[in-house]
Amino acid sequence: MEQPTLKIIGILHGDLHSIEKAPKIYTESDHIGTLEIFPEYLEGLDRIEPGQTIVVLFWLDRARRDTLKVYPRGDRSLGLHGVFATRSPNRPNPIAVSELKVLDIDGSRIQVQGLDILDGTPIVDIKKKL
Amino acid sequence: MEQPTLKIIGILHGDLHSIEKAPKIYTESDHIGTLEIFPEYLEGLDRIEPGQTIVVLFWLDRARRDTLKVYPRGDRSLGLHGVFATRSPNRPNPIAVSELKVLDIDGSRIQVQGLDILDGTPIVDIKKKL
Repeated sequence: MEQPTLKIIGILHGDLHSIEKAPKIYTESDHIGTLEIFPEYLEGLDRIEPGQTIVVLFWLDRARRDTLKVYPRGDRSLGLHGVFATRSPNRPNPIAVSELKVLDIDGSRIQVQGLDILDGTPIVDIKKKL
Repeated sequence: MEQPTLKIIGILHGDLHSIEKAPKIYTESDHIGTLEIFPEYLEGLDRIEPGQTIVVLFWLDRARRDTLKVYPRGDRSLGLHGVFATRSPNRPNPIAVSELKVLDIDGSRIQVQGLDILDGTPIVDIKKKL
């Protein structure tokens, strides 16, 4: 099968600029930022409202794709784990799945809370939380 | 930015062959199937164990990518929604995020329960459930 190609639907504007300083995971973050969705995808945002929690998929463009074993959260005392048993950003397809609270929405700009993702990271999908 | 390319890490073997007959969502499914992970990614499965719930990302190769408005679950009484406010398989990047229970693991074959995904669907990532 041919390798699928992702469409970048937007970009994250946030206050996290280095992996070292970023929260390890969204459940431990109250960082606020803005999802800027590109105009051609605006129609797809209909019915997203403040107060909702949304699932956002990011393409972690600064992650490594050649790693199969990691120390979870960088903690060597835990021992090496297969990447697929962790939430490490480094993995063959570095897609992050974050649950974020919508604070405000203005056209194609969605203000969200709970970010563990670096400023400038491409967005590839948004879903309803189950 | 260049469009990212996904690596297919494996393939799903299941008993669902048509979208019409498939459960609408994994929370309503007890279908069992097998994730066949390709040999080059085997090392990444270390520490996945029976009894765990894992998050699996599938590439929905039979979905439409040009849809921005949908009727959730095909129910017209709900009115049209932006795709990003739903879990529709049809979306610019048709990536499904499923939480599946691990029943058994044998080398690179993982038997899972809870499938709402069609037989033969490519797998692109596995993560720990938070």
